[in-house]
Amino acid sequence: MKIAVLPGDGIGPEIVAQAVKVLKALNIGLEMEEAPIGGAGYEAAGDPLPEATLKLAKEADAVLLGAVGDWKYDTLPRDKRPERGLLRIRKELSLFANLRPALLYPELASASTLKPEVVSGLDIMIVRELTGDIYFGQPRGISTLENGEREGINTMRYNESEIKRIGRVAFEIAMKRNKKVCSVDKANVLETTELWRQVMIELSKEYPEVELSHMYVDNAAMQLVRAPKQFDVMVTGNIFGDILSDEASMLTGSIGMLPSASLDANNKGMYEPSHGSAPDIAGKDVANPLATILSAAMMLRYTFNDEANATRIEDAVKKALAQGYRTADIYTDGCNKVGCNAMGDAVVAAL
Amino acid sequence: MKIAVLPGDGIGPEIVAQAVKVLKALNIGLEMEEAPIGGAGYEAAGDPLPEATLKLAKEADAVLLGAVGDWKYDTLPRDKRPERGLLRIRKELSLFANLRPALLYPELASASTLKPEVVSGLDIMIVRELTGDIYFGQPRGISTLENGEREGINTMRYNESEIKRIGRVAFEIAMKRNKKVCSVDKANVLETTELWRQVMIELSKEYPEVELSHMYVDNAAMQLVRAPKQFDVMVTGNIFGDILSDEASMLTGSIGMLPSASLDANNKGMYEPSHGSAPDIAGKDVANPLATILSAAMMLRYTFNDEANATRIEDAVKKALAQGYRTADIYTDGCNKVGCNAMGDAVVAAL
Ligand SMILES: CC(C)[C@H](C(=O)O)[C@@H](O)C(=O)O
Ligand SMILES: CC(C)[C@H](C(=O)O)[C@@H](O)C(=O)O
Repeated sequence: MKIAVLPGDGIGPEIVAQAVKVLKALNIGLEMEEAPIGGAGYEAAGDPLPEATLKLAKEADAVLLGAVGDWKYDTLPRDKRPERGLLRIRKELSLFANLRPALLYPELASASTLKPEVVSGLDIMIVRELTGDIYFGQPRGISTLENGEREGINTMRYNESEIKRIGRVAFEIAMKRNKKVCSVDKANVLETTELWRQVMIELSKEYPEVELSHMYVDNAAMQLVRAPKQFDVMVTGNIFGDILSDEASMLTGSIGMLPSASLDANNKGMYEPSHGSAPDIAGKDVANPLATILSAAMMLRYTFNDEANATRIEDAVKKALAQGYRTADIYTDGCNKVGCNAMGDAVVAAL
Repeated sequence: MKIAVLPGDGIGPEIVAQAVKVLKALNIGLEMEEAPIGGAGYEAAGDPLPEATLKLAKEADAVLLGAVGDWKYDTLPRDKRPERGLLRIRKELSLFANLRPALLYPELASASTLKPEVVSGLDIMIVRELTGDIYFGQPRGISTLENGEREGINTMRYNESEIKRIGRVAFEIAMKRNKKVCSVDKANVLETTELWRQVMIELSKEYPEVELSHMYVDNAAMQLVRAPKQFDVMVTGNIFGDILSDEASMLTGSIGMLPSASLDANNKGMYEPSHGSAPDIAGKDVANPLATILSAAMMLRYTFNDEANATRIEDAVKKALAQGYRTADIYTDGCNKVGCNAMGDAVVAAL
């Protein structure tokens, strides 16, 4: 059981160190090897996804990622920027299924900007397609028209099998949850998502127990604000999923708590927090490592099929919260404010 | 001063009737003529945008629209569906600038699902490009690949002058407000929006007083939930604007109150409520006509340059609210619940 550990940029190294500490404390014989990605990859090898890093990630059973990106790389050419490393590793490893839970921890309910009755008990699983859509579609680029003006083009593109395989992931997950899938599209305007809707309807026949509904993306963005608890599993394409999963995670008010998984067809996966690299607080030992630690739990669940230890980590996180430990981002009066490292220790102690 | 009145479907006719009543009460010599659009257009002439309706709309100085759409048209072929009438009239009239205010009325603050301190005083103007982007880009459609699978394609496309003209609208509006423009893109992934960002930066040099910022669309969807009052004017493309403007309007909790304007280069415009046709409550005299009445106020302001009468209508709406009049969607205990028609009368009385 080999894990490629890619700390990345900003707070990446410090939060990943805590997750590694927790995984080691389980003592279940995980082999871990580190490599640079993102800005760190560019610094080390002139490439946000160095060849050696990609090789390691391909050989490993799972990847634990911190975060990529830093303002200091904003002026680099497009293909050298940290994000390109992230997009390329997703594509190279065929990580087409991005699972992003939006879960409200009762202890942190007050952090939400929404009224408690609207979000208490919130538990949505967003299933976002991750290797297709307008993110990767050709043709793309900026060109000069005959009249001398520049024009930008990108292509939204999905074929049936791409839609079916992400749909299947959503239905399978719904079977283990409340058996409701809401498929989000813009079928009234975009043919690509009209096909998306058709395929979801066809696929749903294989899952008669699951209730499938459809929602336009603009309405979904509204409903997440109006009544988010109506959702169980939401499934959507890459770009709509990018937008809606960020919106949904912010409903909890504590995105420092939210993990994510990006899986291939064999449940090999890359696991990372839903939040970014936060370069402004990097190296100060104030970042919240819990999303990364919970990402490690997802890794045990989805890639290593080790539900027991996944739950053990999740319970330890809950216990650390119940004991009052809080990093700065989730701190409220009366709690015990700790740094990144001490939060990692608190989780290890609670294991 | 001629207005094409297009009631449309669902609650369209009853809410438009109230706005017409208010406009007539101003007694400023507006000529109004009605025509069918959407499902009503299909019923009348087999086309969601009948030729006679388009002709009337082209001749008129402004268009007052109710809403289009009804589930009963869901099985029609794509080009007969009500939405196509809407998309086509936008394109035919070159209504490239969609202005969607998200404004919180103090009397209705409790309707928001967000905490009062997060949304009190909320006043965002979303400027959405409306005749370009993936809504209209070619190539598009569903085709069959060599392996027999279907594939869907849509094309995001913007050229410099399209970006510049919508940017200019945003900067001009910001000059009359708090002089802040936030341009929303996904420049880290989509070249089209990389061009968008470049053009906004170039254009901003003509507006040195306006503070221009940039935000990725996923972050914007988060920030609208986290701290919506940070925004003054937001400007973005058609599809991102569709999503974000709906999210923003739901922050107020009362989208029955929110008008919109869609303008061409000469401030000819189409004015309509931000909400939909709500076929489930159509014909029951319970719909909220205030968004449509406020759309008529926007018409006076933007197309007829009649700030005095625009403000007069807006003040009358505020007065009706202050007097306790509420339709069902915004009703709270202790207020005076009225129907659609009576709400129109209350506004006329308050003029
Ligand atoms: C950094 C960026 C390329 C990425 C994306 O858009 O997918 C991020 O927003 C995410 O959601 O993981
Ligand atoms: C009905 C639909 C085609 C339309 C759009 O997507 O533009 C609507 O959602 C809107 O925002 O006016």
